[in-house]
Amino acid sequence: MTTPLPQGATIGILGGGQLGRMLSVAAGRLGFRTHIFEPGAEPPAGQLAHSVTTAPYEDRAALTAFAEAVDVITYEFENVPTEALDLLGEMRPIRPGREALRVSQDRLVEKDFLSGLGLSVAPYADVADAAGLSAAIETIGAPAILKTRRFGYDGKGQARISRPEDAEAALAELKGAPAILEGFVAFSHEVSVIAARGRTGEVACFDPGENVHEQGILRTTTVPARLTPAHRQDAVLLAGRILNALDYVGVMGVELFVTAQGLVVNEIAPRVHNSGHWTQNGCAVDQFEQHIRAIAGWPLGDGVRHADVVMENLIGTDMDRVPALSQERDVALHLYGKSEVKPGRKMGHVNRIVRG
Amino acid sequence: MTTPLPQGATIGILGGGQLGRMLSVAAGRLGFRTHIFEPGAEPPAGQLAHSVTTAPYEDRAALTAFAEAVDVITYEFENVPTEALDLLGEMRPIRPGREALRVSQDRLVEKDFLSGLGLSVAPYADVADAAGLSAAIETIGAPAILKTRRFGYDGKGQARISRPEDAEAALAELKGAPAILEGFVAFSHEVSVIAARGRTGEVACFDPGENVHEQGILRTTTVPARLTPAHRQDAVLLAGRILNALDYVGVMGVELFVTAQGLVVNEIAPRVHNSGHWTQNGCAVDQFEQHIRAIAGWPLGDGVRHADVVMENLIGTDMDRVPALSQERDVALHLYGKSEVKPGRKMGHVNRIVRG
Repeated sequence: MTTPLPQGATIGILGGGQLGRMLSVAAGRLGFRTHIFEPGAEPPAGQLAHSVTTAPYEDRAALTAFAEAVDVITYEFENVPTEALDLLGEMRPIRPGREALRVSQDRLVEKDFLSGLGLSVAPYADVADAAGLSAAIETIGAPAILKTRRFGYDGKGQARISRPEDAEAALAELKGAPAILEGFVAFSHEVSVIAARGRTGEVACFDPGENVHEQGILRTTTVPARLTPAHRQDAVLLAGRILNALDYVGVMGVELFVTAQGLVVNEIAPRVHNSGHWTQNGCAVDQFEQHIRAIAGWPLGDGVRHADVVMENLIGTDMDRVPALSQERDVALHLYGKSEVKPGRKMGHVNRIVRG
Repeated sequence: MTTPLPQGATIGILGGGQLGRMLSVAAGRLGFRTHIFEPGAEPPAGQLAHSVTTAPYEDRAALTAFAEAVDVITYEFENVPTEALDLLGEMRPIRPGREALRVSQDRLVEKDFLSGLGLSVAPYADVADAAGLSAAIETIGAPAILKTRRFGYDGKGQARISRPEDAEAALAELKGAPAILEGFVAFSHEVSVIAARGRTGEVACFDPGENVHEQGILRTTTVPARLTPAHRQDAVLLAGRILNALDYVGVMGVELFVTAQGLVVNEIAPRVHNSGHWTQNGCAVDQFEQHIRAIAGWPLGDGVRHADVVMENLIGTDMDRVPALSQERDVALHLYGKSEVKPGRKMGHVNRIVRG
């Protein structure tokens, strides 16, 4: 029931950032064309794509024309407005599907979903208002972290509560947005699994990578990660459980805390993931191609790794290091073509191939 | 004297085939934009580029607008018309430079150049007419091969002369085009060196690959090639000599016959080369990025190889094998997005990573 997408078919990508850009290049390697839909001008993905539509997600005529021009639709970020998805979904298949978006767009729904699967997550409580926050702090304790239910990324939409007295300031910082309070998990390190599920239900995972964050932004991912064989197996099994429960098609990033009691799921992202960029230089089929294969109904790559890699993000003025990096042996540069350097902005990454 | 091309600069590429396409993707990885100039409609490179101009090389207005829109110009094939180069060259730097084009556009000039450097080439003679061909067969003997001086590729523009009596038919086949007669070289196998030279004169070579042709078209390239350490060194040294003599900037493909008497230069191509496609999955910096680095005045990658690779071209109906190939482990697909399959047409290639 899954006719593979033929050569020359067009894949529509919602979002024109670096993930859309690298998806476009991977789609090209498989003989597909891409069409980028992006509200912002001069999207990085547009530099390496067949077509670009520049329009807001509220422009129904532009959305309709976009859907008519493509064969299947995917996205590089999970916060596509629901109304746009409603319109597009009536015209073309959207992969990964709506259920994955519904779950991952809302931290509360996501936590409930993961707990419902029997997976460990950080202690959490719904916070609708000041009274709710007081109650949540009673249950979960402090320190804890208040997070908006929606639209958070790279540490944005979060406020730390070190002591109960910080509650008011934290609520103010989130400007009354619906939120959850999350307790801290005592973990030794964070890993992520980049998992894929195809249209016929097969699952393939890349080797887990070990992540280091700085100021809420991913700094490095190292493969192989430090994991016991049992944890390595757990990581893959739980990722598979998540994908199957969502009848998922595509690549998902699953962030995990490694604790003495086992793996705790931090969050899931229904898309290619920054912590999977190492696959570009460590695998014959990288996460971007894997995602395209899945949504195109092609066989998945097996995710097998042929090199050890350390991925490092180039953030803001890290771009000043490019001349030096370009002279280093076994360093693969991946720059995003963004015209303006801003603090905290992801400008590119490097994959360092590590020899045994 | 070589200010590196800055982030966001635009590289103009003459020719919109698969080489232009892969150059465009590599340029993107370094943060550059690309602009493709190609007479044919729907060029494969246009699917993965920022801009495309569709116009003939005789369209001076289109050439002028193209040159104005770019910072530096390169090409994916050596047969760009001279008049177009004259116009473009006055407006923007063309890299590799005109001397490399002059030499490689004409087999006779190329052979004279290589011999002049003291390198071994097949026995050859200029053939202007029937009398010239008779004289050439006297000197060189038969079997030999008659080749047009210009515009030959993938075995086109060639006629085999098995016995002196074939001379008339061979001349007819080439329709009176200026030609050379080339004697056969008794070689055990063919290798090629993908060599690069930067704007400050540094040279870097990739490990030589071993080539197998079928019906005049490259079928496979295998690295490492079968070469003695002495031949391996010779290959690199002679490639360097060629690049230096031309004050070359960019990547060049140098095809070599391996004989009992040493290496014989078959031909040179002043561009990225089909026999260098393996570098996409064997090196941190592949031949396409190496070329972009060279023409952009960036440091060259060192060409070091981290994996053994067998590259296989997908020609014509080889495309029927894509579903099976997509299921093989350690196989990286690189398809060109060409809409029509034709016999002898290069549709894509695969790189097989070979584990030790």
